[in-house]
Amino acid sequence: MPDPQPSAGAISPSPFRVGLLGHGTVGSAFAALLAERASEIERFNGRTPVICGVLTRTRGDFEQILAESELIVELIGGIEPARSYLLAALRAGRDVVTANKQLLSQYGEELFETAREHGVRLRFEAAVAGAVPVVRVLEESLSATPIERVHGIVNGTTNFILTEMAHGSSYAEAVSEAQRRGFAEADPSDDVSGRDAAAKMAIIARLAFGTPVHLDEVPYEGIEHLAAEDLQFAREFDLGLKLIGTAERRPGGLSVRVHPAFLYSGHPLASVAGPFNAVTVESPTITEITLSGPGAGGPQTASAVLGDVVSVMTGGARPPAPPLPLTLITDVASAFYLHLDVADRPGVLAAVTQVLGEHDVSIRSVVQRGTGERARLVMVTHPVLESRLRAAIERVGAFPFVRSLPRTIRVIEEEFV
Amino acid sequence: MPDPQPSAGAISPSPFRVGLLGHGTVGSAFAALLAERASEIERFNGRTPVICGVLTRTRGDFEQILAESELIVELIGGIEPARSYLLAALRAGRDVVTANKQLLSQYGEELFETAREHGVRLRFEAAVAGAVPVVRVLEESLSATPIERVHGIVNGTTNFILTEMAHGSSYAEAVSEAQRRGFAEADPSDDVSGRDAAAKMAIIARLAFGTPVHLDEVPYEGIEHLAAEDLQFAREFDLGLKLIGTAERRPGGLSVRVHPAFLYSGHPLASVAGPFNAVTVESPTITEITLSGPGAGGPQTASAVLGDVVSVMTGGARPPAPPLPLTLITDVASAFYLHLDVADRPGVLAAVTQVLGEHDVSIRSVVQRGTGERARLVMVTHPVLESRLRAAIERVGAFPFVRSLPRTIRVIEEEFV
Repeated sequence: MPDPQPSAGAISPSPFRVGLLGHGTVGSAFAALLAERASEIERFNGRTPVICGVLTRTRGDFEQILAESELIVELIGGIEPARSYLLAALRAGRDVVTANKQLLSQYGEELFETAREHGVRLRFEAAVAGAVPVVRVLEESLSATPIERVHGIVNGTTNFILTEMAHGSSYAEAVSEAQRRGFAEADPSDDVSGRDAAAKMAIIARLAFGTPVHLDEVPYEGIEHLAAEDLQFAREFDLGLKLIGTAERRPGGLSVRVHPAFLYSGHPLASVAGPFNAVTVESPTITEITLSGPGAGGPQTASAVLGDVVSVMTGGARPPAPPLPLTLITDVASAFYLHLDVADRPGVLAAVTQVLGEHDVSIRSVVQRGTGERARLVMVTHPVLESRLRAAIERVGAFPFVRSLPRTIRVIEEEFV
Repeated sequence: MPDPQPSAGAISPSPFRVGLLGHGTVGSAFAALLAERASEIERFNGRTPVICGVLTRTRGDFEQILAESELIVELIGGIEPARSYLLAALRAGRDVVTANKQLLSQYGEELFETAREHGVRLRFEAAVAGAVPVVRVLEESLSATPIERVHGIVNGTTNFILTEMAHGSSYAEAVSEAQRRGFAEADPSDDVSGRDAAAKMAIIARLAFGTPVHLDEVPYEGIEHLAAEDLQFAREFDLGLKLIGTAERRPGGLSVRVHPAFLYSGHPLASVAGPFNAVTVESPTITEITLSGPGAGGPQTASAVLGDVVSVMTGGARPPAPPLPLTLITDVASAFYLHLDVADRPGVLAAVTQVLGEHDVSIRSVVQRGTGERARLVMVTHPVLESRLRAAIERVGAFPFVRSLPRTIRVIEEEFV
């Protein structure tokens, strides 16, 4: 016989009490959205969510809020005091909803384990891709499917900047425009360095593969060193150039990383433009599905947080699953785009290709542009271990005819032509 | 205090018993996937799913399977006997998972009501867009968000045919190719007529807006009458031409419909190519999110069905919510593309535009092609009520200089240029 469902169909008159930590942009948007949607949520779930206490830097008492709430929503951000509050809440048997990617990517396992020990839920849809329901889909829909790879554009700021650059702006102009339109902070380094995306990929890897991944274990490269010429190359060859986070099974373990990458134009992520996020999940059973939408703004994040609250209310969430560690592999094979600024003299191409060959770097295509002292040599390699490519590049960079540091960008090579 | 979770952390040794009705392509793919994933599912949920009985036309006993199972998976398809079996299962207190869009779009309310009465779950992710988790996202993630509009490419067969036609194939060639590659049935009329998409939009409308919608209430137009010229127009003006299902709030109620539509190239659905499905959900809170992936093949459908089974096992699903009926509106305003095959004589354009003007059809742009007896007049209108446009077209079609039936195609006009 089926298990009885404790509250199916029963209308409980008591409100569902939510304690709110943090009342900045997202916190106040969340409080407003909760009030707006309360009666609709009650219609589906039989209980009305209410905010029973708010903690800010200047008001509210955490212990009192904890005592009065059934669920804690954390929208403070950063490591402390958020971490201590959440551990205390989980230990007190409270379900927790958070949007805190810093905390989850650095202390996630501690939180997951505490939640598991105490049999409570820990939800964090808003920490990954705003209102795009990546966490839910990885956790629930795909629990029936073995995942091979997740590719994501998980930072809207850098995607906006790259979109502007693809339309001809310089990097500096694109950053200014992003700041002017509120898509980038005054100090955008967390975004443009790839660190924000790396935090999100650590969280995604835990969900998709069960493997605990700390932010410090995710190698990342940002977009600061991309040049207008790279974008021009992308345009000419009908490729997208995006900041891509990857989490994928590789022989011997799991690779999680963030770097710019060229994508062939048919790739589901190639057409994602502006401050959007998108994630593609690949599995032999389903081939691939893609989720896309606006990155994290106040309303989008608030909506994702409220969705998590509703999940807990409906019982549609479980305590975190135990970890299933895989070896993290950092030296993986990729195809590379290789940009060399060279003096065009006899023997240059021969010298470069010989060094590449000595490191097992095999060339798929070569384009030479310009002549004389300012020639450009652009090559695309076949897949090669990154360590081999780096060693080869170091030797190539030392040639006297190479005029500036060689630039390398990975190429997502499936169907790449 | 939070509600205790009955089985959190506890490992139950008893298997989760699934009764399977139907053992065709999808049924056998489901049984194989369940066996393959059983231990992984057990790791997360504490119980191992097992198939405790299979009903086919020639073997198995429904009553016995019902008695022995906790959940019934229905993969027979069609109305009867699927409907009777599912009603019996729901009345016996069993949770139900089905992929049956015919049944849900025609007898959905009866099933929802029965499930609600008996406090059991009715899951049907696979009925809408294969492995693309549209149902889950509409039901759960977006419960916190008021939905304004859903646009979907929910029939992979027609999207494949239109993609082939966009690359220069005739309609007949594209249909043959779809059949050859297993994307279309020997008799593709349910797909190409738009009826299959209409059934899915009826289900989507119920989820997104709470309004019971019967398949018979969804006006649909197919792709049989599209001409190579229409696809050429799309290509020239950088538009997509897709079979689009729409469910949207309109003044006074809800419009649910299926028809071919031109989409501006930046629309998230414009780039969806081949036998894929994609759904865009629009809401003021989140602007829009898009989910895309392969349409329903055996493995994709099996994966979605198993995902539903896992949802029920984890408690992550509720009995259906009560309906919230909105008035269904069938006469809605759209921008239209209008294709006239005319003899190019003096006064033709004046005569046509006068009739259109008399019916409040206002022209946004006109292109005339060719001269003499085989000229083509292509117009795009501003949004106009369909009934007005039809009345105008009837009069225009009666002009002696109009050489064949005028063709009309809706234009998704947001950002249309």
